[in-house]
Amino acid sequence: MGSIAPGDGLSPSLTQHIASILPNDNTRTALGTSVIPSLLRSISDIAKALRAAQDVTHAGTANTFGDEQLNVDVIAENHVREALALCPSVKVASSEEDPVERPVTHSSSVLGGSQGTEQYTVAFDPLDGSSIIAPNWTVGTIIGIWDGGVSALSQPPAEKQIAAILGVFGPRTTAVVSVRVPGSPATCFEVGFSEGELGGWDVVRPVVRFGDAAAQKTRYFAPANLRAAAEDERYMGLVNHYIRNKYTLRYSGGLVPDVVHALVKGHGVYLSPVTGVSKAKLRRLYELYPLALIIECAGGKAVDPADGSEILAREVRNCDERGGLICGTKEEVNTAISALLGKP
Amino acid sequence: MGSIAPGDGLSPSLTQHIASILPNDNTRTALGTSVIPSLLRSISDIAKALRAAQDVTHAGTANTFGDEQLNVDVIAENHVREALALCPSVKVASSEEDPVERPVTHSSSVLGGSQGTEQYTVAFDPLDGSSIIAPNWTVGTIIGIWDGGVSALSQPPAEKQIAAILGVFGPRTTAVVSVRVPGSPATCFEVGFSEGELGGWDVVRPVVRFGDAAAQKTRYFAPANLRAAAEDERYMGLVNHYIRNKYTLRYSGGLVPDVVHALVKGHGVYLSPVTGVSKAKLRRLYELYPLALIIECAGGKAVDPADGSEILAREVRNCDERGGLICGTKEEVNTAISALLGKP
Repeated sequence: MGSIAPGDGLSPSLTQHIASILPNDNTRTALGTSVIPSLLRSISDIAKALRAAQDVTHAGTANTFGDEQLNVDVIAENHVREALALCPSVKVASSEEDPVERPVTHSSSVLGGSQGTEQYTVAFDPLDGSSIIAPNWTVGTIIGIWDGGVSALSQPPAEKQIAAILGVFGPRTTAVVSVRVPGSPATCFEVGFSEGELGGWDVVRPVVRFGDAAAQKTRYFAPANLRAAAEDERYMGLVNHYIRNKYTLRYSGGLVPDVVHALVKGHGVYLSPVTGVSKAKLRRLYELYPLALIIECAGGKAVDPADGSEILAREVRNCDERGGLICGTKEEVNTAISALLGKP
Repeated sequence: MGSIAPGDGLSPSLTQHIASILPNDNTRTALGTSVIPSLLRSISDIAKALRAAQDVTHAGTANTFGDEQLNVDVIAENHVREALALCPSVKVASSEEDPVERPVTHSSSVLGGSQGTEQYTVAFDPLDGSSIIAPNWTVGTIIGIWDGGVSALSQPPAEKQIAAILGVFGPRTTAVVSVRVPGSPATCFEVGFSEGELGGWDVVRPVVRFGDAAAQKTRYFAPANLRAAAEDERYMGLVNHYIRNKYTLRYSGGLVPDVVHALVKGHGVYLSPVTGVSKAKLRRLYELYPLALIIECAGGKAVDPADGSEILAREVRNCDERGGLICGTKEEVNTAISALLGKP
């Protein structure tokens, strides 16, 4: 690490795209030229590591729980940590693998670098989707970037979480990036990584945006935590509503691919309700907040199934707080939350 | 094509594994040393092509149907055709992209090669899962290898289709291979491809086998063609049965990843029923037969939802015949088919 190999960085058009979505008053220079590029490189590093890790196919099977799976998670964790070590503006970080906020130790190569006014805190889930790694299904990385170099805790997420990245490891390596900083419109775009000397990250889709639900021929639904429907007649009723109305099912069980499916298709609803027996599993800091920012920047909606409030309306006081999630096309989210909360 | 680059072939242990599962009387030399290795190389070639094809992310969206999607399919088709051109024993081939059986034209590099007694026909689906390519979900290739160099039509599949390969394009490149030839036990194993000079194809899981369903803590179900449940109360009832009994949902909408999920986990049931309104979509020759052979070789069961008969019990008379599919763990398949056919 520390140097960028040919074909390992950002294309001129991506660099230009990122610059174009940030305020042109130099208040976000480090975000655009250091933090986002470094984190994208960590995602291509993780992609390469996953491809080399044929032994992870044994992970998730009954006989080999634990060690090997942990190894892949740790490799991903290390790649993101190495990326952060190259960003002087990132002062604090924590992750689902190591859920304690700690100061970032920077590489000697960047020490003494520009000490601008930008200071960030990063919260990330290095490798989401452990149950579907063995069958070689698409998995992902989730990263949230917060304004301020002290903590993401007890901060209003809607205001302080100013960028998010979803890395998608499938047949290709792609990522969805959102930025929402004061002084610029909220943006959501897709990038793709190509290998080789002439490769690197480039813009694939400059605008990712939910379309008009009524205009879609196909309507998608992704019912997570479906076991909860056995205990909750409202969820059961909602799932039956989708089936009877011929919605198309797409549910991989990986949070990143399931949400990215809706983003790329431009419509769809993802549901992970919570019941008394089926507890909330999704970490607010490492999973819900970054996903919610991306969904909102794409013109969608992300709410808490417990009360229908927006995911980003509620701050966390500790790194392990969890919740459910209903997100996607606004109209679909409204219909789902009304059904789940029993409102007409 | 025509020469094998370093790190592009089969490891000594995989070569040995393939030799060990074939009769040792030299009657299957071409199958083990030419056909299966060539086809595996076509799968790693397709994987590389998919990774380089960032523009396919636009495929499947409303505005860009057709051309770009077709391109990826054609690239995959060409890689398999090039592999077959290197196999003198493969006399005839057809595919979902070009569903007419034609003689294989062999590369000049292999002309004049050994004219052994082995003769094969190949039927394949070069790239299955077009609807989930855009969101970067795992997709696959399906290949069936038939005894005899004339045709796969009007042949008994259970006897004449003697090998099958599923290529899986996800975070890694993997494949599931089954061989069932007279004189040797039926086998199913998983291989993985690693890049680089020291890479190539290697054995990942020497035995892929469905386990005892009763011993599993988690039970998986994959309900394809779920829109049919809106028209068929039996299918609706079966889906509700899975939900109420807390089965875990995994359904990507890609035939290869959905079936491979059950194979790798060692249990699960995949359902693609057929109703009067929701017609059969799966091609028997290019999809159902190879999948059924692999499921059977792994100790599972693959039946036709129309009447509960085994998929491999029925021959086809033309390349485009279609059907539904219920496959996976034997007990689960029996339960599902009884429910769908209304038998107690």
